[in-house]
Amino acid sequence: MEYLNYKNYLRKIADINFAGAVLSWDQETYMPPNGADFRSQQLATLAGISHQLHTSNDFGEMLRLLKNEVSLNDIETKNVMHSIHDFQKQKKYTTAFVELMSNTINLSFQAWQKAKENNDFEIFAPHLEKIIDLKRQECNMLGYKDHPYDALLDLFEPGCKTADLDRLFDDIKNQLVTFVAEIAKTKQNDEHFMFKFYDKKKQWNFSLYLLSNLGFDLKSGRQDQSSHPFSTNFSPKDVRITTRTNEYDLSEIIWSTIHEVGHALYEQGMLVENYGLPAGECASLGIHESQSRLWENNIGRSLEFWRIHYPVLQQEFPENLAQVSLEEFHKAMNIVKPSAIRTSADELTYHFHVIIRYEIEKGLMEGSIKVNDLPTIWKQKYKSYLGIDITSDAKGVLQDVHWSHGSFGYFPTYSLGSIYAAQFYAAVKKQLPDLMTQIAHGDSSKLLLWLREHIHQHGRLYSVEELLVNITGEKLSFKYFMEYAKEKYTQLYNLSDVPVKV
Amino acid sequence: MEYLNYKNYLRKIADINFAGAVLSWDQETYMPPNGADFRSQQLATLAGISHQLHTSNDFGEMLRLLKNEVSLNDIETKNVMHSIHDFQKQKKYTTAFVELMSNTINLSFQAWQKAKENNDFEIFAPHLEKIIDLKRQECNMLGYKDHPYDALLDLFEPGCKTADLDRLFDDIKNQLVTFVAEIAKTKQNDEHFMFKFYDKKKQWNFSLYLLSNLGFDLKSGRQDQSSHPFSTNFSPKDVRITTRTNEYDLSEIIWSTIHEVGHALYEQGMLVENYGLPAGECASLGIHESQSRLWENNIGRSLEFWRIHYPVLQQEFPENLAQVSLEEFHKAMNIVKPSAIRTSADELTYHFHVIIRYEIEKGLMEGSIKVNDLPTIWKQKYKSYLGIDITSDAKGVLQDVHWSHGSFGYFPTYSLGSIYAAQFYAAVKKQLPDLMTQIAHGDSSKLLLWLREHIHQHGRLYSVEELLVNITGEKLSFKYFMEYAKEKYTQLYNLSDVPVKV
Repeated sequence: MEYLNYKNYLRKIADINFAGAVLSWDQETYMPPNGADFRSQQLATLAGISHQLHTSNDFGEMLRLLKNEVSLNDIETKNVMHSIHDFQKQKKYTTAFVELMSNTINLSFQAWQKAKENNDFEIFAPHLEKIIDLKRQECNMLGYKDHPYDALLDLFEPGCKTADLDRLFDDIKNQLVTFVAEIAKTKQNDEHFMFKFYDKKKQWNFSLYLLSNLGFDLKSGRQDQSSHPFSTNFSPKDVRITTRTNEYDLSEIIWSTIHEVGHALYEQGMLVENYGLPAGECASLGIHESQSRLWENNIGRSLEFWRIHYPVLQQEFPENLAQVSLEEFHKAMNIVKPSAIRTSADELTYHFHVIIRYEIEKGLMEGSIKVNDLPTIWKQKYKSYLGIDITSDAKGVLQDVHWSHGSFGYFPTYSLGSIYAAQFYAAVKKQLPDLMTQIAHGDSSKLLLWLREHIHQHGRLYSVEELLVNITGEKLSFKYFMEYAKEKYTQLYNLSDVPVKV
Repeated sequence: MEYLNYKNYLRKIADINFAGAVLSWDQETYMPPNGADFRSQQLATLAGISHQLHTSNDFGEMLRLLKNEVSLNDIETKNVMHSIHDFQKQKKYTTAFVELMSNTINLSFQAWQKAKENNDFEIFAPHLEKIIDLKRQECNMLGYKDHPYDALLDLFEPGCKTADLDRLFDDIKNQLVTFVAEIAKTKQNDEHFMFKFYDKKKQWNFSLYLLSNLGFDLKSGRQDQSSHPFSTNFSPKDVRITTRTNEYDLSEIIWSTIHEVGHALYEQGMLVENYGLPAGECASLGIHESQSRLWENNIGRSLEFWRIHYPVLQQEFPENLAQVSLEEFHKAMNIVKPSAIRTSADELTYHFHVIIRYEIEKGLMEGSIKVNDLPTIWKQKYKSYLGIDITSDAKGVLQDVHWSHGSFGYFPTYSLGSIYAAQFYAAVKKQLPDLMTQIAHGDSSKLLLWLREHIHQHGRLYSVEELLVNITGEKLSFKYFMEYAKEKYTQLYNLSDVPVKV
């Protein structure tokens, strides 16, 4: 009875959170521009009500009784333990702080948009100062042992510490810098045909075709357009993705579609009966990203995947692709080239974009980096890690929305996602030896089933480390990513003579 | 200070109600089919929270203090009086009743959809029984003096009584039956060209053109498609309408667009500072409908309106309209012909559709009509009032969504809207003598300004009767509608010799 009350209570909180998600989705897809101010207020009200319910004495009492309840089964016990953890975390925030943060973020987001539009960091700087001040307060409110940044990381990637990331990113730097440099010395593959004119309507139809093929249930979800692709969900039966089309760059819709569908398949794989419960939530943002990266990179950038889908694409765009062979197309899908913009980076140099942001965020939280120095530091780091000259702040330090949203600690989950994905991929290839043959026949259903069984259906019931160990037999290891990268790019760039440390 | 608290409190309730409105809008426009179940639950949760806030002791105490507050100005006092009235009304509902009603409606709506699809009233009947039972309980909870139906009418049209409607509908029957019969004796005007093939994309563009021309602010609103056209709003800065296109019936998009934009202009005319306050809400649903009807019928079906817009339409569809003169098109826009379906009825026979529903609803609330007899009664009344044989329940008693939603007392506001509109229109024509010349030049801005000044900006601050008396110098009177109808249709159908009682 008490457990039922608890479940119903959490479902009510979920109803409110998902209502907020609908409002946010609408904001990014269809909302008319003047709707922004009241929309912010409506979102803040919903967030406030959710926080109140999440921290109420009633809920605290419910959890206290359940903690000592002996009749619960394992899964019920795990749900309750997670809820107690969440309750304690939410309790560390005062309502006043939540509201102040919400308002600061709204103003900051508007300032960021304006700053980016006008290529003027000064417009954003004072707002960013305030956000960072609040985030540093938040670190103290949440508490940490070794590094203030640990408190923020834990919000996105439970259990992940700054010290772990330092080690991981050292591995990446040690092994990937050399490898990328070797690729840079070879003859670059051709991709000019990707930038011819591609009709938007036809692009859209192709992306719907891919969605269906990959197992996205269009009765329980849909695809729309937005300026920044994202995925969101209002229940396992209503999962939305957005993509964008560029008439002169075919890659945008292809990668946004396959990436977002990876996220969406995770959410569609949650169990309906776990709606609102920890068991119905993602294990971490890194695990979420591992799903999008696995479909995008390990599957979507493979030769086998395009063996079946490329002829369909050729038929849609014969004027651009009839003369391009499958192998040429596959190479163009996998160009490695340092660039200024994170969201369009290839899967190897992407990690350096993340490392740059990670180092800066750490410094901001420690207090060793000042906001006013950011444009200069940004340029130095891009030169040093990627050999790139950043010529404008709009395409430099202002390119990402995250800081204006107060999302510090988020970027590392992008790298973690790729690395988890490579580790999962190595495991699934052992367990489904003919996986890539199936993929070459357009059948990814077995892979989806495997992900559903081993990852999706468990929600938060297993920690990231438990998932990794259960599925792959070991903790996080960068070697799988490096092996995957080595095998793939050695072949794509004819690097067979290059020594690669793994 | 107390008034500020009160305002902020009401705005919070509005945030939740408008969040619910966004979820409902999405449900009708973009939501994938499997999203329905969780969406119902999310809407019920928001409704529950709204009801709790609306009836809380805190709010009651706030209102008690404000009732005796002498420092309030007139507008503030009116807002508070309305809120006290609303509070008392909300208090009559128990949370258990609100939840039971919400669940009953969800099931009933699904049953109605299935019943309509299968042309099988039996599927809907048991659900309708339950709804009617709850609505009769609601009449008792709310209280009434003369007729139980008065309690429900008051929810949509404050102050309107069954006895008033009996008188009004008698007037309509006495005067309109004869007039429609006279029209029926004449040669029917031609409208066959309305049912040729009309490209949907071009229809859509024409409707956007009309929206802009009529003063709908597309930065503070948008138009989408849905199977049933509606308008909704999330603030005066975000007002949505939906329309539908039929490739073989041009009239659908034209009338849904102009009708819904009338509603939308009312909402865009509310003052931003009144968000959430009674002063920012509509005076009644009848007044809301008067705005849509005024634009749709009095303006949109006039010769002057099409003098400027018809050439644009001809240019879009020369294959269908090049040979059709303005006068022929205007006649086709104003065909009077009894029909089975309310939503596609002309502006004269429409009233009989409402009267039929009104008589049935009254009977259901009194207990003099039983659910199982509805299909038969429906057929009898359509035969008697409109001379129409109803051959299927799907196109008869099952055609409207309202009863499945529990919206008893709503239909009369449709007739009231037309009658208010005619009365307002007579007044505005006196005050803006060259109105129709402006309309013929494509300029409706003076009319919109007049409506903003006299109606929109006041929200609920004036009652329906006060609005009528302030603007037109008298209470509700059917004669303006009849005069308008007589003048217009006498000409359109060459009825000059027909005696019309007014």
